[in-house]
Amino acid sequence: MTTPVSERQSPETPVDELIPSVDEAPGSRPVAWPHRHLLDVDALTIDEIETVMRTADAMRQVLARPIPKVPALRGRSVTILFYEASTRTRVSFEVGAKNLSADVVNIAAATSSVAKGESLVDTVRTIEALGADILVIRHPVSGAPYLAASVFGGSVVNGGDGWHAHPTQALLDLYTMRQRLPRGSVAGRKVVILGDVLHSRVARSNVWALTAAGADVWLCGPPTLLRGFDAWARAGAGGRRFTVTSSVVDALRDADVVMALRIQKERMTGGLLPSLREYATRYGLTRERLSLARPDAIVMHPGPMNEGVEIAPAVATGAQSVIADQVANGVAIRMALLYLLAGART
Amino acid sequence: MTTPVSERQSPETPVDELIPSVDEAPGSRPVAWPHRHLLDVDALTIDEIETVMRTADAMRQVLARPIPKVPALRGRSVTILFYEASTRTRVSFEVGAKNLSADVVNIAAATSSVAKGESLVDTVRTIEALGADILVIRHPVSGAPYLAASVFGGSVVNGGDGWHAHPTQALLDLYTMRQRLPRGSVAGRKVVILGDVLHSRVARSNVWALTAAGADVWLCGPPTLLRGFDAWARAGAGGRRFTVTSSVVDALRDADVVMALRIQKERMTGGLLPSLREYATRYGLTRERLSLARPDAIVMHPGPMNEGVEIAPAVATGAQSVIADQVANGVAIRMALLYLLAGART
Amino acid sequence: MTTPVSERQSPETPVDELIPSVDEAPGSRPVAWPHRHLLDVDALTIDEIETVMRTADAMRQVLARPIPKVPALRGRSVTILFYEASTRTRVSFEVGAKNLSADVVNIAAATSSVAKGESLVDTVRTIEALGADILVIRHPVSGAPYLAASVFGGSVVNGGDGWHAHPTQALLDLYTMRQRLPRGSVAGRKVVILGDVLHSRVARSNVWALTAAGADVWLCGPPTLLRGFDAWARAGAGGRRFTVTSSVVDALRDADVVMALRIQKERMTGGLLPSLREYATRYGLTRERLSLARPDAIVMHPGPMNEGVEIAPAVATGAQSVIADQVANGVAIRMALLYLLAGART
Repeated sequence: MTTPVSERQSPETPVDELIPSVDEAPGSRPVAWPHRHLLDVDALTIDEIETVMRTADAMRQVLARPIPKVPALRGRSVTILFYEASTRTRVSFEVGAKNLSADVVNIAAATSSVAKGESLVDTVRTIEALGADILVIRHPVSGAPYLAASVFGGSVVNGGDGWHAHPTQALLDLYTMRQRLPRGSVAGRKVVILGDVLHSRVARSNVWALTAAGADVWLCGPPTLLRGFDAWARAGAGGRRFTVTSSVVDALRDADVVMALRIQKERMTGGLLPSLREYATRYGLTRERLSLARPDAIVMHPGPMNEGVEIAPAVATGAQSVIADQVANGVAIRMALLYLLAGART
Repeated sequence: MTTPVSERQSPETPVDELIPSVDEAPGSRPVAWPHRHLLDVDALTIDEIETVMRTADAMRQVLARPIPKVPALRGRSVTILFYEASTRTRVSFEVGAKNLSADVVNIAAATSSVAKGESLVDTVRTIEALGADILVIRHPVSGAPYLAASVFGGSVVNGGDGWHAHPTQALLDLYTMRQRLPRGSVAGRKVVILGDVLHSRVARSNVWALTAAGADVWLCGPPTLLRGFDAWARAGAGGRRFTVTSSVVDALRDADVVMALRIQKERMTGGLLPSLREYATRYGLTRERLSLARPDAIVMHPGPMNEGVEIAPAVATGAQSVIADQVANGVAIRMALLYLLAGART
Repeated sequence: MTTPVSERQSPETPVDELIPSVDEAPGSRPVAWPHRHLLDVDALTIDEIETVMRTADAMRQVLARPIPKVPALRGRSVTILFYEASTRTRVSFEVGAKNLSADVVNIAAATSSVAKGESLVDTVRTIEALGADILVIRHPVSGAPYLAASVFGGSVVNGGDGWHAHPTQALLDLYTMRQRLPRGSVAGRKVVILGDVLHSRVARSNVWALTAAGADVWLCGPPTLLRGFDAWARAGAGGRRFTVTSSVVDALRDADVVMALRIQKERMTGGLLPSLREYATRYGLTRERLSLARPDAIVMHPGPMNEGVEIAPAVATGAQSVIADQVANGVAIRMALLYLLAGART
């Protein structure tokens, strides 16, 4: 916590220098991460994103060991507070924290005092008083993690808030692309995000991280599910550029990465889509459509999938799919972030 | 994982030779179990059932220690995925896995992505990518664990599927009978399974294990709750023999073991039973009825019980009841199975 | 378990003599606690309450360490069975038990066999057979923990039962008052419990513990929410004295401690309160009302709060509030009780 800035590790430190410190308990670590919380990817510089990626490399080496456990967070307490159902995000934080030897407390809002009407702020204060060092929160209201961070004395990690942000998903997606793309870089690569962009915290966070990393980002979907992004694209979104289109042919042609987004059935009731069948017919990621992309293009999906709607089963499990890698890398990325936050010098 | 077949432990290895290997981490173990999954008892030979029983003996010795923990599964990850409510099965797997030093992740379907409509296959693939080595699954649909095993890279344990099978229950029941019966064998003993045989995965799995072990198995209940078993009995069910009757007097007379099954209240609505009261009057296991059995007969129930319906409270907690032993042995049996599967040489 | 009475530690043993035994595994401990269960505070003598307080002091020293873990309960199994939603009580038991190196099993009644209609007695017998040494239970029915204790072979801790008792809350409240009051004693101090006294297990348990410790206890609220306490007060309640009033001015004047109780919205439907707004206007703990108390009076609330109803937000988070201390001390008190029960000589 008090590591002087002068000792801050430069982004170029190789992974094998990180490994020894991962195997030691807190206090002996050279890493100094400048952020107390992880609320959105837009707070990270390119160098900091690089540090996350290299730390995740070190964590993947830990995960490859027969006993994938290191003492780095021994004695630290991680509370996972989820107001929405989840398997992969919750479990990957739980597994990641336990691999780092942290103690983990799970709180599902449905069976907690939240059900008695306790305010988020009171719940967060209570969790802090119970001894939590790191709070991972998922909440249906955009901005809830920011409110939590304003009262929590430790570190807050955004595990997904409303339509707003899902920063750990964006980082694991970027990590997975770099792992699979030639020369390990997304710079200049055509990355297509296909589907319900409007309601997707995954899309929002990915646009930011990918444009920062120099990718040629395309957002594609029915016009009703792209609303607002056109204006954002034209405005230049903080100096970054991306393309918005409803033409699935334009989008997929020569793509290097195609990421299909989940179509939530509840969107139908809002009149934004005529039917799932029509969506599947016009925008579903089928083998035929995928053939428009580069032959070595990779297929991604943040899960959970509606197979046969936004993605065909044969594509989801085909040779180009890296969907299982996304899940596995999610554990490494979350370990990396918990590790960095535990060493934050703020 | 790679122990050659030639080193495979014979079923006659005494328990005290097993104990040292239980106290060591994986890799150093002589046991080679030939099955990757445990989906039903019908896949086990008599010798393999013997191996499970002896391994459970070793685990009971571990459980009797002041600190009932061994490092056998250290670094292994066990995920418990339950689509149905449960106390004893879920907790006994959790406690057993932790006693073996495994890491345990609980997923209750109601609070997971399953609630968002994710398919079982996708959920299982996700759990594998998250690092699970062993998946314990309970599911209301018969056959679901087979589907899970077809896509999961590790070991799948069936924790109960629909009306089909509940193999760990059958093994702990057999273990409990052998523990209590003279000369430790069910061969030639009259074992009565009383109640809702039709809807019981416990009955199905027990018929298989008990007839294999040479017991004289009787199935007894109202005709509507025995449907199909008559034909199965006449057909000889894979060379095994058992008796089906609606006469509770014929069934209980001189019985060595009486196992009452849970009557699920929802069966009433289906018209299969006139009322719980009538069931209790005609088939409930009362002290009077139990007096038809041998004086030293043991009383079993897989739980949870409807006391006063299928079993009288005085019988459930009486001197002949081994119901609490069933629960305690359940932990030892599940430890044995997790241990064997972790050493599977497939 | 078998420490002779002659070795029983006197209440005057200083904390630094407790610390070494906290750092050792069970068996080596000098503490002998005379109660197998903790069902209500009324079973504890003044000396025993002192022992709890001093043991909690030792646990606070453990909590202040970089790695707040001691091996005292290694190999012991603690099952937390909650039939009602809870955050702070459940999590503080879980964190406390893990800090003592116990194994923890959580059972939420909604996802357990309880949902299938299993009786409490059967559930408790099952939990014992599964290996639990200590059972922490919260139940909506008053007296349920006593029923559990009548069949459970280990120790039962009441985590709150109906309107009846919440002994660990009373102990942590007393601990928090002593920590903050001059000379560390509640004797002769005016302690006001304000709100829905009628339905509060917190109020019931606190009246007992505080009058035993010599506090001048005042119960204040609308007449409909004080019913029965007037008669109890006049009867002298086991030789103890306290004052019951509906005058918030009389109650708060010169108070040393003001504890606001949660107003449960469901009380409105029962006709006991005209509206939450009216309650807030007449009995809510505002800054103006708090100014009637002594300038250094402390403000408490057992949580979860309805801010703006029974307590104003500015008071809940103001300089006089010790609400967060209550939560933090709750972990220390629960560690102390688990530790004492694990060494019970009964």
